[in-house]
Amino acid sequence: MAVLRPTLKFIGASSLHCRLHPLSRIRSSAFRAFATNLSPPSKAVVYEQQGPPDQVTRVIDLPPVELRANDVCVKMLAAPINPSDINRIEGVYPVRPPVPAIGGYEGVGEVYSLGSGVSNLSVGDWVIPSPPSFGTWQTYVVKEETVWHKIDKSVPMEYAATVSVNPLTALRMLEDFVKLNPGDTIIQNGATSMVGQCIIQLARAQGLHNVNIIRDRVGSEEAKEKLKNLGADQIYTESELEVKNIKGLLGDLPEPLLGFNCVGGNAASLVLKFLRQGGTMVTYGGMSKKPITVSTSSFIFKDLALRGFWLQKWMNSENSKDCRRMIDYILSLVKNGKLKYEMELVPFEDFKGALDKALGKLGSHPKQVIKF
Amino acid sequence: MAVLRPTLKFIGASSLHCRLHPLSRIRSSAFRAFATNLSPPSKAVVYEQQGPPDQVTRVIDLPPVELRANDVCVKMLAAPINPSDINRIEGVYPVRPPVPAIGGYEGVGEVYSLGSGVSNLSVGDWVIPSPPSFGTWQTYVVKEETVWHKIDKSVPMEYAATVSVNPLTALRMLEDFVKLNPGDTIIQNGATSMVGQCIIQLARAQGLHNVNIIRDRVGSEEAKEKLKNLGADQIYTESELEVKNIKGLLGDLPEPLLGFNCVGGNAASLVLKFLRQGGTMVTYGGMSKKPITVSTSSFIFKDLALRGFWLQKWMNSENSKDCRRMIDYILSLVKNGKLKYEMELVPFEDFKGALDKALGKLGSHPKQVIKF
Repeated sequence: MAVLRPTLKFIGASSLHCRLHPLSRIRSSAFRAFATNLSPPSKAVVYEQQGPPDQVTRVIDLPPVELRANDVCVKMLAAPINPSDINRIEGVYPVRPPVPAIGGYEGVGEVYSLGSGVSNLSVGDWVIPSPPSFGTWQTYVVKEETVWHKIDKSVPMEYAATVSVNPLTALRMLEDFVKLNPGDTIIQNGATSMVGQCIIQLARAQGLHNVNIIRDRVGSEEAKEKLKNLGADQIYTESELEVKNIKGLLGDLPEPLLGFNCVGGNAASLVLKFLRQGGTMVTYGGMSKKPITVSTSSFIFKDLALRGFWLQKWMNSENSKDCRRMIDYILSLVKNGKLKYEMELVPFEDFKGALDKALGKLGSHPKQVIKF
Repeated sequence: MAVLRPTLKFIGASSLHCRLHPLSRIRSSAFRAFATNLSPPSKAVVYEQQGPPDQVTRVIDLPPVELRANDVCVKMLAAPINPSDINRIEGVYPVRPPVPAIGGYEGVGEVYSLGSGVSNLSVGDWVIPSPPSFGTWQTYVVKEETVWHKIDKSVPMEYAATVSVNPLTALRMLEDFVKLNPGDTIIQNGATSMVGQCIIQLARAQGLHNVNIIRDRVGSEEAKEKLKNLGADQIYTESELEVKNIKGLLGDLPEPLLGFNCVGGNAASLVLKFLRQGGTMVTYGGMSKKPITVSTSSFIFKDLALRGFWLQKWMNSENSKDCRRMIDYILSLVKNGKLKYEMELVPFEDFKGALDKALGKLGSHPKQVIKF
């Protein structure tokens, strides 16, 4: 494990951010030696520059932080490695967070200690940062009370740790663009992704039919079987959709009025083909790295609308109350066995191995969730 | 001039449509020889099958039609040859109107006679069919009172004849998708088109800035000068936009939040590039016959929305009252010299010549408007 080098330069964008930086921790402990309310030291995954996550991240020990009146110190229980965490470390997003930074944006923890002014949380409560907030890949996180959302302790910790990015993306996309009623149909590509799996189950919980497109690959029959078990009504590989009358495949299902695209290229065109007159396609990813191509007549005669979704837009926004309501709903589905997805809990000591798996260096693996 | 052949087969989709067919006219006059309220005979441009307009249309004489209680007989004054009229005759629209049919969808006429139950119109009123309605290329049109919208007689007849398709498309697109405020900017390609010219002037009337893209061609400087005179703030040819920092060209103008595309291909991509975060592009034509290609990040990070517009959607809809309000507003701008576009009034006798000009067979010509 690396030792904190005094030569590191830390640049904080906000006071909150500053206070999570290793250097600010040193300052706190050095200049306030007699402070009474300190967090324990924290072990954290830090990166000092953007780049390949397996090269730029390292686990270091951070000194205690002083809790201000409204602060809450949370002992992290679990936090996932999401593709968006990887993208942030790589620096491929249009807005790069300042470095150095601690990795991770979501996770669940237990309240460990409270600032003197905190009244709505108690030691032992389970909490998640909502909206998701940087720095969850560490053993103790200190943030203001308003950052934390108290949740039901009776759900498995790996679901609590992962609820606020992928499942919330799925639910927001089902609710934010088109008014859906039970009996309506939705269509999506990239259906085997974690968001895709959530869409299938959330759609089912709301009485919506769902049509799913997956890529052609070895094991596609097995993938279909898995999605069927989650509640998928129809599943097609892209090549199975090379037919003249694509809508004939729908049988008795109503034509979809909402579609989700996380692939682009041909897979996006297939979603557009399935959509009914006046339908909407929401793009939230581009796994094929190909653009979306749309005919003029799709807009004029078929009256399709194309939109985009990025959860980031919801962070630090006025919608946090709405997001928390949705999170509670999603966790209630988890509790009732109506929402599940595969995860692998990995001890924090094995972070590098989990990161390699999340980076796809070791073949296909379930979502990696660090257990602290 | 052709004589009506009794062997023609007429298939009417609706009773209204039926009553405008030559055969139904024969029936009316044959079986109701003693009816007292008949229209005059009408001279009409008819096509018996879809195809090249200069081959399938012919001018024929139609016998008188009996006016029912709610009918109004209108002596047509003027009607334009719009690209959409040509497309309908060609049969390139997804929904083909039944044939045989009388050409033309908009125009202005003078009330000639009234059914016994008509109370809101008087002989001599100027009226236009609103929403636009088939069969305006004839000397006398009989339709129900509700079809007709009475307009101000003091505007030039060629503007009254052309207000309800192109200028209304421009105004609806400015009002239906994004809430615009004075000082906002809009961007469009195909700016020299009739809709494009209307967008410039309507935007100006509403205090909006406008940025315009035209195609590279001989005479583009002249075209720019013309659009400048109509009120264009900025005009670029496509090749002038092959720059790294396209938004740098905007200078002091706010980034556009609404864009219009009637071209597709590169010209559509340029509109997307100009749009600001969260902007909307509305497609209403595809002159280049190329599709619209959009990057995934345009949807996710730039949060662009892509929509389509087709005036046809407004026909026979609940929005007719709204459209009539807009038409009155547009005609008031015409009256005040704030909206103008080039037209050529052509006597009905020269219909074939006007059609050839509208089809582009004789080079570039202004909008052809038939004067009856």
